Amino acid sequence: MIGSAATFDGQSLIEEFIRTHFVADNPLVTEAVRRMIAAGGKRIRPRLALLCAEAVGAAPTEHLELAAYMELIHVATLIHDDVVDRADMRRGVNATAIDYGNRISVLAGDYLFAWIFRNVTARYAAPIPHILSATLAEICAGEVLQLRALANVDLDLSDYLEIVVKKTASLFAASAECGAIVGGASAAQRDALRTFGRDYGIAFQMKDDLLDMTADAGSLGKPVGNDLREHKVTIPLLFALRGGDSEFRDAVERFFTRGDDEQIRSIIDGVRSRGGLQATREQIQHYAERAQRSLAPLPESTPRRSLIEMAGTLVEEV
Amino acid sequence: MIGSAATFDGQSLIEEFIRTHFVADNPLVTEAVRRMIAAGGKRIRPRLALLCAEAVGAAPTEHLELAAYMELIHVATLIHDDVVDRADMRRGVNATAIDYGNRISVLAGDYLFAWIFRNVTARYAAPIPHILSATLAEICAGEVLQLRALANVDLDLSDYLEIVVKKTASLFAASAECGAIVGGASAAQRDALRTFGRDYGIAFQMKDDLLDMTADAGSLGKPVGNDLREHKVTIPLLFALRGGDSEFRDAVERFFTRGDDEQIRSIIDGVRSRGGLQATREQIQHYAERAQRSLAPLPESTPRRSLIEMAGTLVEEV
Repeated sequence: MIGSAATFDGQSLIEEFIRTHFVADNPLVTEAVRRMIAAGGKRIRPRLALLCAEAVGAAPTEHLELAAYMELIHVATLIHDDVVDRADMRRGVNATAIDYGNRISVLAGDYLFAWIFRNVTARYAAPIPHILSATLAEICAGEVLQLRALANVDLDLSDYLEIVVKKTASLFAASAECGAIVGGASAAQRDALRTFGRDYGIAFQMKDDLLDMTADAGSLGKPVGNDLREHKVTIPLLFALRGGDSEFRDAVERFFTRGDDEQIRSIIDGVRSRGGLQATREQIQHYAERAQRSLAPLPESTPRRSLIEMAGTLVEEV
Repeated sequence: MIGSAATFDGQSLIEEFIRTHFVADNPLVTEAVRRMIAAGGKRIRPRLALLCAEAVGAAPTEHLELAAYMELIHVATLIHDDVVDRADMRRGVNATAIDYGNRISVLAGDYLFAWIFRNVTARYAAPIPHILSATLAEICAGEVLQLRALANVDLDLSDYLEIVVKKTASLFAASAECGAIVGGASAAQRDALRTFGRDYGIAFQMKDDLLDMTADAGSLGKPVGNDLREHKVTIPLLFALRGGDSEFRDAVERFFTRGDDEQIRSIIDGVRSRGGLQATREQIQHYAERAQRSLAPLPESTPRRSLIEMAGTLVEEV
């Protein structure tokens, strides 16, 4: 018997689906994509899509294929991110860009985007292909905004939120909305689930920002302070800078100018002592609770409880 | 009065359409795309789409928007090519990658692909969104094959043709087919026009290969021998290598290994004296004539004559 998406092993099913269905006609592309998949990840976007479909009446594994495309859009953006950021570690393995070169990373990501849209346009009616392409445009726009905001110590909360909504929350919103659509949601349910996805996505990114300052390299699979190293002004830093301490601000600006990695530990300590971590926890709680409240229009069910639990998990252990 | 796409200034109309319709919400992306558009190009893909629509009964400028997307798909691949090939000149201007950095080039190309698909999925019914995404997958697959074939002196004609059909001819075939579809073509007309586009595209790429060895830097807007410099085994070289002259083959292999640009002129002379240029001209003629013959199912008309003339132009002056 297949349980709810809340309990069955959706992660394995998604990986199995991708493993058996994604074959590019070129082994370099297939290998680049499979390697990025094999590097791990919690497959939260497909889980969200499946839970949303189930919350409005679909069977738990009825829409595995659509769910897999949500993960693959994410994977394609990660492959291109490797070119963009010159990251030398991602999820604890060498980045595709390092093993295969920028050229293959660009082409593998492009091929994967095209492959996804080729399948989606063949299998799903309007508005799903449109939602996914609009989402990809949002993600790219968000990443460009993020690039332009690097090392900007004057970044304010609304700028930060615009970047996060576009680059991260948009794909969670689309995963939830597309799951709702294929599950047969009413307009009100679809709106509610899309809103859940967006607010969950905002809280998710904020938690990611927080973990970059609080987790250790082993559990995170990437170096602590990686965002600082890439000159990203994430939300804990933004709150710490808002305190108006000019000495701290000068230290951050010096770090962004000179890039001395020895300073990362002391900047993180400065963020903590100025309340940046605590203010971030409060924001995560705010968006996670808002996500939970947005589920009000949905009938009580096991998948609905799972969605509430997913959002609750973001607030724990940080 | 608007004339036929054969005579009216479709090039300006397409440029005007793109200039007024493409605005990314980020100025860096808008600028990267506009700069690539402003760098020139003959807008052959949109012209082909418009002529095919008109050949089956549409008004000449009825499908400018669809035609513009064909050019923009090409532009997006050029933007990503700049990352891929590290080209330092393209169409006579600095490449986007050099002015904006690899990061912006990847994101600008991704944004443009997403923007095109967002619009196409909103405005065109099946099968157009599917044809365009399948075509993009083909282009990427062709570019990966081309990368793997670099410096391969054993490349044979069927390998070369597979690369060319995918990376170049597929977008001409799609332009012709989509033009035919929106123009209201019958199934036979659609097949005929798609075949025209594909064979025209093969001849077009072969002529591009030839010009890289015969034109001068000024008229081509890029250095002569650029393909050799990038270690591409193009069709004139492939035919010259087929002659079995081991001294020439050794010289080409040495060039690919050591990359001494001083040798380019003498390799081109070697290609000429071994019949590589002449054999290429014969292939261009073969595919151009095949393209022309494929128009047999279409009624006689001005746009049909323009298509025949377009293919004929590839055979002239080479």
